[in-house]
Amino acid sequence: MKSRPGLDQLGLSTGKKARLHRILYRHGLGNGTAIFLPYDQGLEHGPRDFFANPPAGDPNYVIKLALEGGFNGIAIQIGLAEKFYWDYAGEIPLVLKLNGKTEIPAIDPLSPLNGTVEDAVRLGADAVGYTLYVGSPAQEHDFRQYLQVREDALRLGMPLIVWSYPRGADIDAKGGKDSFYAVDYAARTASELGADIVKVNFPHPDKQSGVPAEYASEFSAQQAIDAVVRSANRTLLLVSGGERMGDAAMLEKARESMEAGATGLIFGRNVWQREHDDSLRFACQLRDILAKYPSP
Amino acid sequence: MKSRPGLDQLGLSTGKKARLHRILYRHGLGNGTAIFLPYDQGLEHGPRDFFANPPAGDPNYVIKLALEGGFNGIAIQIGLAEKFYWDYAGEIPLVLKLNGKTEIPAIDPLSPLNGTVEDAVRLGADAVGYTLYVGSPAQEHDFRQYLQVREDALRLGMPLIVWSYPRGADIDAKGGKDSFYAVDYAARTASELGADIVKVNFPHPDKQSGVPAEYASEFSAQQAIDAVVRSANRTLLLVSGGERMGDAAMLEKARESMEAGATGLIFGRNVWQREHDDSLRFACQLRDILAKYPSP
Amino acid sequence: MKSRPGLDQLGLSTGKKARLHRILYRHGLGNGTAIFLPYDQGLEHGPRDFFANPPAGDPNYVIKLALEGGFNGIAIQIGLAEKFYWDYAGEIPLVLKLNGKTEIPAIDPLSPLNGTVEDAVRLGADAVGYTLYVGSPAQEHDFRQYLQVREDALRLGMPLIVWSYPRGADIDAKGGKDSFYAVDYAARTASELGADIVKVNFPHPDKQSGVPAEYASEFSAQQAIDAVVRSANRTLLLVSGGERMGDAAMLEKARESMEAGATGLIFGRNVWQREHDDSLRFACQLRDILAKYPSP
Amino acid sequence: MKSRPGLDQLGLSTGKKARLHRILYRHGLGNGTAIFLPYDQGLEHGPRDFFANPPAGDPNYVIKLALEGGFNGIAIQIGLAEKFYWDYAGEIPLVLKLNGKTEIPAIDPLSPLNGTVEDAVRLGADAVGYTLYVGSPAQEHDFRQYLQVREDALRLGMPLIVWSYPRGADIDAKGGKDSFYAVDYAARTASELGADIVKVNFPHPDKQSGVPAEYASEFSAQQAIDAVVRSANRTLLLVSGGERMGDAAMLEKARESMEAGATGLIFGRNVWQREHDDSLRFACQLRDILAKYPSP
Amino acid sequence: MKSRPGLDQLGLSTGKKARLHRILYRHGLGNGTAIFLPYDQGLEHGPRDFFANPPAGDPNYVIKLALEGGFNGIAIQIGLAEKFYWDYAGEIPLVLKLNGKTEIPAIDPLSPLNGTVEDAVRLGADAVGYTLYVGSPAQEHDFRQYLQVREDALRLGMPLIVWSYPRGADIDAKGGKDSFYAVDYAARTASELGADIVKVNFPHPDKQSGVPAEYASEFSAQQAIDAVVRSANRTLLLVSGGERMGDAAMLEKARESMEAGATGLIFGRNVWQREHDDSLRFACQLRDILAKYPSP
Repeated sequence: MKSRPGLDQLGLSTGKKARLHRILYRHGLGNGTAIFLPYDQGLEHGPRDFFANPPAGDPNYVIKLALEGGFNGIAIQIGLAEKFYWDYAGEIPLVLKLNGKTEIPAIDPLSPLNGTVEDAVRLGADAVGYTLYVGSPAQEHDFRQYLQVREDALRLGMPLIVWSYPRGADIDAKGGKDSFYAVDYAARTASELGADIVKVNFPHPDKQSGVPAEYASEFSAQQAIDAVVRSANRTLLLVSGGERMGDAAMLEKARESMEAGATGLIFGRNVWQREHDDSLRFACQLRDILAKYPSP
Repeated sequence: MKSRPGLDQLGLSTGKKARLHRILYRHGLGNGTAIFLPYDQGLEHGPRDFFANPPAGDPNYVIKLALEGGFNGIAIQIGLAEKFYWDYAGEIPLVLKLNGKTEIPAIDPLSPLNGTVEDAVRLGADAVGYTLYVGSPAQEHDFRQYLQVREDALRLGMPLIVWSYPRGADIDAKGGKDSFYAVDYAARTASELGADIVKVNFPHPDKQSGVPAEYASEFSAQQAIDAVVRSANRTLLLVSGGERMGDAAMLEKARESMEAGATGLIFGRNVWQREHDDSLRFACQLRDILAKYPSP
Repeated sequence: MKSRPGLDQLGLSTGKKARLHRILYRHGLGNGTAIFLPYDQGLEHGPRDFFANPPAGDPNYVIKLALEGGFNGIAIQIGLAEKFYWDYAGEIPLVLKLNGKTEIPAIDPLSPLNGTVEDAVRLGADAVGYTLYVGSPAQEHDFRQYLQVREDALRLGMPLIVWSYPRGADIDAKGGKDSFYAVDYAARTASELGADIVKVNFPHPDKQSGVPAEYASEFSAQQAIDAVVRSANRTLLLVSGGERMGDAAMLEKARESMEAGATGLIFGRNVWQREHDDSLRFACQLRDILAKYPSP
Repeated sequence: MKSRPGLDQLGLSTGKKARLHRILYRHGLGNGTAIFLPYDQGLEHGPRDFFANPPAGDPNYVIKLALEGGFNGIAIQIGLAEKFYWDYAGEIPLVLKLNGKTEIPAIDPLSPLNGTVEDAVRLGADAVGYTLYVGSPAQEHDFRQYLQVREDALRLGMPLIVWSYPRGADIDAKGGKDSFYAVDYAARTASELGADIVKVNFPHPDKQSGVPAEYASEFSAQQAIDAVVRSANRTLLLVSGGERMGDAAMLEKARESMEAGATGLIFGRNVWQREHDDSLRFACQLRDILAKYPSP
Repeated sequence: MKSRPGLDQLGLSTGKKARLHRILYRHGLGNGTAIFLPYDQGLEHGPRDFFANPPAGDPNYVIKLALEGGFNGIAIQIGLAEKFYWDYAGEIPLVLKLNGKTEIPAIDPLSPLNGTVEDAVRLGADAVGYTLYVGSPAQEHDFRQYLQVREDALRLGMPLIVWSYPRGADIDAKGGKDSFYAVDYAARTASELGADIVKVNFPHPDKQSGVPAEYASEFSAQQAIDAVVRSANRTLLLVSGGERMGDAAMLEKARESMEAGATGLIFGRNVWQREHDDSLRFACQLRDILAKYPSP
């Protein structure tokens, strides 16, 4: 396993450290790793994501699942946080997702703000999430909007998790959104822009069409994710699950990520797009992997 | 009837609960259901909407109609509220519609603010209304504008009713504004973004051209509206009447909506685009339906 | 009965009218009169006021009593409103008492702010209360503090009820706090300073030691309260009960007040410093009096 | 044991509930009770309080003691929080004490602000503390200063613990600062003014010189603390230890407090004014008592 | 020598650490110790302080002296900083003294603000100074004023040096301003209130008239200064020279201070109230002492 920095080596303010300690050491396995349950797909993709397992359309079901499955936090939008988190306040960390959008309009990728860091503080959240569309032609608006979030998060001691997502026509032309090149660049961008934690997709080194020369070589998946974690340097890294795929492949991705020094996983559809007990069984398998990679 | 959540299960602040209690339990039937009279068509469509029944061009006539018809509230723009609500202040709840637009310019759908939550407080309103054009290419501006309204409504304890309307070229290309897909997504979007009440059109599951695979199946109208209410989860749901159509069809839509667990109806043109006594007779029929679906 | 002005004759803004209409016509007898239950004695006098009827120390008991007794509103401080009003939000109007003090320090009477008009809006209150110590050497601070409250109440359409209480050494030297002179002056002061409703003690025309010559004559109680209501002019007037005394005397005071054109009563200790059913019986007697004096 | 309200019965916002849940159910015994270690005596009394056990002059020693002793939180001033909490951030809840003073000037009791609620948020604190000197002639300044703290705490979802301390010449003249009368009034005052938790001294019903008639009777210590908890109603109550006294007496006070329905204890000097292992032994005895009074 | 905490053990923000590093490691001896030249006596005492050595009335002379003498910084008021620091900007660290007063009015000690932290940033200062009169009856105003300075210094990453001076009638009655008790309490107060560096007078353990029992014992000067440094804990401590006295006594105080773990000295009149070369000679003797106590 590659070395993972401890919380006291990240340049964190007291409040950020307190909240991250809570997430990483007082929830989930409590060993410095984390697995988060993201649940903003109802906004990002619409209710169609719940057709595979209709009970998952009920936020109460999903928050309870996160609790039962020993997750380190649940990432939701302001509306669900206002209506559903009170019942579980303090029992599981809340990551308030600050921006989001519907998938409908065919415009340059940009995720508008729907909540503020102060909302997160008010709701007792332990972190905020922000989707940054790395490579989007709307980069200027995105960076400007992000700047305010970063400043507020700093002022209020709130950890900032950046969903660092390569997107847009230019990304599509250079290997696509989950090429090693794009993911590596996204991890570094979040680090350069001050994220405390960065969430990336697992890199695919075989997607090389249009990527810069440096990435147009033979890399194993392990080499790629190793490099991505290095690019994030003192920004802790989470690997996201994305669309549902086979369990064996997901578990292998999880293992490689942890081996690379990632802090953890953020798996949504792969967890709740299946029947309840099967969700818990899969979460348990993920936790088994994390248990092998405690922070020093 | 599907279960409808009580006011104490919605995560409401004291002020929002007080005002919604007033609307739902101290006006109209007082049984937890509601029927609202919207009257912003003079701005949205222009006076042409009053040609069918010229007296309805007079706001005083319409507010009085709402009172006589036992409505739970009247939804109007700031100008009419300033000029006409004083006469009826406190007799019927005011829903101040905060944004609105003319139908004239052919631009990306966006409804600009014409009033503020503080205006609503000052006028003694019991709720505010905001039109969100789900799927519009102007999504970024819309969400940003909405964010401020939501924050103000939260700070001042004012219930927020979102007119969640699918609109724009991309919606047109994916089944249209009243497809099951679009309405379902709109209901969920309002819930994710923190609406207290969402107003949607009745879904049409037969409009399937261009919709995602999940919606390209056989669904009954009842199945569709059931799903939409579920997607709104703890956001109370109102079904809007839209353009005037036959009474029998409207009453059937109303019945199916209530059966699905909707909180009520918001019917304008179907009510006041006809002669006075006929308006009241129709309102009475709607109330008869609501009377069969009291909150527990 | 002396004539009492209607709500449309008071120069009220839309929001103030809406909220007062709610209090006067949609709660209690709904006839334009009002009886309020004040419950801030726990702060003003301490828990000793509850020794006569210990259950009254529980705010929940008292709010419920107000509901059962058909009161038009409950007047409480911010802390109790935050903790107890949610359960009854909208069922009975809330009058948020904005200032208050303990009776302990022997200083010039001044009641510091503990809440704001915006708190009242946020909590869904229908009015705010402010204690003005007319005649206190701390007049300057009091008036300055009141100015802000009045401006905020105006801006937010919130009715302002002034507890207009003569207090201080100079009042003691001029007939005392419930002389006809002091009460009459207090009623006028509230009217001059922009109260929507004024709460006064019942005047005692026999307390003449040190009062100005004009008040050092023979006046009946009825003449005195008639004059006080006239002094308040378009400020609606409530007569407060003060310390508990015999029921017959209280009822006679109530009758004379209504005869004089008062809008109603605000009786606390006389109501809840007795056993539950006896409280309701007494409230019923007060309501019987109010029923004889409907607004035109 | 008298019943103690659950966190879901206190009218708490989501953020306050999340943070109190953390304190009461994820630290200490995790059973809804709490024991806090206050450590602001270096400011309130000066370093002389550390002469009994010099290592206790080192904030690092005391925070570590709180951790070892299984305390639910440590209450310190901004300076120590800035310098020492980072090392333990998230391991033990921080209660940021917002005001404080030296004991030197002989002036009307008033505790000036040294920090803000936003400081507390920034540092990852789970509550703020404010000393209110009930009965002080400086009441007006104190209430005004407190108002801002309460509003900020509300806005940011931060639990507010009020050190409700009777003080001043008028208190001295009416039974003194720990009479049943004074403590009972202080508990109620904090509740009326919106504290989430109130910290009081243990009441002494035998101190009757100058107290109001209601308190000039025979009451047992148990009857007195029972009444004080009732006066606090939905404000959770902590009993403070005050100056060091015999262990047996302290433990008996602790037991009676819990029996009355108090939520817990806040003991400083009685804990750290003794040798390290003896401190832990005493803390263990206190925890044994709390273990017998879990929240339902 | 008692241990002195390193810069990385003080809970400093990045900006505060950068500026303190500059002062302590890139000026003076560069060994983690410091000697400052304070020069605000022209305001505090008036020009009478310059009669002993008239050239010292010229700020240019004194700043140059600080440079020649290898001081780590010069502490001056805003007016002198504006007019004289430009010439030496960057050559020697500037400590902008933010408050100050004349000695003329016989009022409760309080030092009003004459500059802001933002002035200090604008002028390129490396620290700000604030005089806190511990024990003054004006404590409330002083703490409130200090709170703003502390918050600004935090926000802008500016080290805050507190001149922690016991003053006022109550101090005079309890051993006086340089009793061990008063100085010890002053050091702790600065630490509790968030100073980065505290400047105190050398304690006199023999001044025991009226001090609390704990201080009414036999203590050596070394024991006293040892305790004071401990009370300051992670707040670095400077010992001030005060009025001019014999060199041997001064040097002994300096040695004892450094032995106790002080970070350095802040000597003004003892330096510049003598002829130029003699000033440098004395400064050299002080530096010789500091050279023996490098930070680890």
